[in-house]
Amino acid sequence: MKNSQSFIRPLVRELHPYVYGEQPKIKGLIKLNTNENPYPPSPKVLAAVKAAVDGRLRLYPSPTAQPLREKLAELHGCHADNLIVGNGSDELLALATRAFVEPSSKFKVQSSKSLVQYFTPSYSLYPVLADIHGARKNPVPLKPDFSLPSPAELKRAGVWKFGAALTYVTTPNAPSGRGYKMSELEKLCVAQTGVVILDEAYVDFEEENAMKLALKYPHVIVARTFSKAYSLCFQRVGYFVGHPELIAALHKIRDSYNVNGLGQAAAVATLNNLPYYRANFKRIIAAREWLSRELTKLDFRVFPSRTNFILVRPPRFAAHEWQHRLRERKILVRWFNFPEVKNYLRITIGTPPEVEALVKAARRIIC
Amino acid sequence: MKNSQSFIRPLVRELHPYVYGEQPKIKGLIKLNTNENPYPPSPKVLAAVKAAVDGRLRLYPSPTAQPLREKLAELHGCHADNLIVGNGSDELLALATRAFVEPSSKFKVQSSKSLVQYFTPSYSLYPVLADIHGARKNPVPLKPDFSLPSPAELKRAGVWKFGAALTYVTTPNAPSGRGYKMSELEKLCVAQTGVVILDEAYVDFEEENAMKLALKYPHVIVARTFSKAYSLCFQRVGYFVGHPELIAALHKIRDSYNVNGLGQAAAVATLNNLPYYRANFKRIIAAREWLSRELTKLDFRVFPSRTNFILVRPPRFAAHEWQHRLRERKILVRWFNFPEVKNYLRITIGTPPEVEALVKAARRIIC
Repeated sequence: MKNSQSFIRPLVRELHPYVYGEQPKIKGLIKLNTNENPYPPSPKVLAAVKAAVDGRLRLYPSPTAQPLREKLAELHGCHADNLIVGNGSDELLALATRAFVEPSSKFKVQSSKSLVQYFTPSYSLYPVLADIHGARKNPVPLKPDFSLPSPAELKRAGVWKFGAALTYVTTPNAPSGRGYKMSELEKLCVAQTGVVILDEAYVDFEEENAMKLALKYPHVIVARTFSKAYSLCFQRVGYFVGHPELIAALHKIRDSYNVNGLGQAAAVATLNNLPYYRANFKRIIAAREWLSRELTKLDFRVFPSRTNFILVRPPRFAAHEWQHRLRERKILVRWFNFPEVKNYLRITIGTPPEVEALVKAARRIIC
Repeated sequence: MKNSQSFIRPLVRELHPYVYGEQPKIKGLIKLNTNENPYPPSPKVLAAVKAAVDGRLRLYPSPTAQPLREKLAELHGCHADNLIVGNGSDELLALATRAFVEPSSKFKVQSSKSLVQYFTPSYSLYPVLADIHGARKNPVPLKPDFSLPSPAELKRAGVWKFGAALTYVTTPNAPSGRGYKMSELEKLCVAQTGVVILDEAYVDFEEENAMKLALKYPHVIVARTFSKAYSLCFQRVGYFVGHPELIAALHKIRDSYNVNGLGQAAAVATLNNLPYYRANFKRIIAAREWLSRELTKLDFRVFPSRTNFILVRPPRFAAHEWQHRLRERKILVRWFNFPEVKNYLRITIGTPPEVEALVKAARRIIC
């Protein structure tokens, strides 16, 4: 009898799985670690989802999320053909590696056809997706203040690959919270000859977005999600906007019924109730600005954020130590064990009482 | 500017997408084409799902479907480590190709490491998954009555590969409805040196199942789903049971939050209400037997079924023509454009009024 490990591809055996933020179910815990929205979905969305919980659960959902894609097309001024909905945008980010990037063994080591490229720090899932697919990775540092190097700067430094098969850009950036101008993103897109995914998971907390670029260039995709801004992490709905041919390639390789029916219903209802969410964005931004000021007073270095979280360099103790001390006080924040961010904490913006509790706890830890 | 097609991998450009059954929203249509359960979920399950539609939707669901896996482990007398839950079992079937099968180009053409194997006819998704992954396929015909060839018979015929990296067996078989004994499945499993997935999507309508084999052999996985027997197609919940090392490999490459929260809640509630579903299985089996007898009287050749559908060879007109004529009478059945089944229709078992309407329509078409 063979050992079970022998049935598993060597590539998979060697993988390090993605480390997701803790999802503990501890009473009274203030959860500021996974960038969830502190506000529940609109009561109208909850009512719409409840109304859909009936005999229809026995039936398959729309395999193409057709009603949702039509509503999104209206919102973004494009066609349903420009859209694919995923089981969270994570599913779509993974599909993109499989549609646009060759596993590296097929090509010479230097081939850009097998190259997944991204800035560091950014969403820590990208290297995981590249590894799962057997692609090569090209992580390139952002500038020290997390701003985007210009194409000229990238060319001078010589590490960035303008021909990479797939480039992911988290915009606004996570985990730094830094926002980028559409004009600088456009310059980068124009310089790339492979597919560029502008991952706008947090864009609703920012003033600008780059949706226009996905509808202008044949190789640019914009990724969006209902998870964060629209309080729907639980139901797994994200989407891509891009050229119909890129989108069609992703449709070909996705699971047939990839988006659950109640998730589709929740997302459609969300689009019918946008003012509720826009009011929440304002509250979150106000809490972000307040928290940034208060932590600055306590000698935290706070990076300016255009998202629903802030990246901070805490005083006195190491960031990891801070994470532990806050957890003792039942406040969960995120620390990443990556060299470029290991001195920082990422703190999700909660409700006013939650961010006040954080400031109070930080004061006690320091004093 | 490059053409959009040039950004897409040649492998993906050449794919033919999986053809799923129609999901039309036409009033009064009798939908017997995609093997959905004609009965809604238990009222207690609907109540449990409604009760979960609240502020928690803003939070990520359990990334490992922990509460559901614990309940399933109890049901099947195994450990949570033996279990992975998927976004429908389709997601897991796809993950299996990526975990256990090498894309073919990496190896010599004859390598069994890149081989996906299955009987024909069976679930039409398997070849699609192999193609998407760039694996080689070995489709091998079942016997003319859709029974399983024995290992000795397979050896004699010389086409079957006992070393295939991954073998899918739909048991009971779809689209024929034929059931297989655990003992014959065990002989096949013992003869295989690669991974075997026993796809038991329809096993709740059958007396025997092969779950024991997944817990006995390190290379055998049993696939189950809440879609059909448990009236939850809409919410996308399926699972695999197998050796912890095979299961861990699949966990490594799945999306972090692959199963939506309300789907998890619905599945847990389902397991708390099994008697409701078992009563439905009996009603469906009774309707299946009645429909089989009635269609036989009308000169349909009806294959004996252990599932919630029947495969029939209709009299007088071609099967495709029958599909059209039934659709004109607002009855949807499934026809597959594959050589081995193109003379047949697959009919899902509906409620008594639905199958009576089908018999009435068939009588009118013939007369």
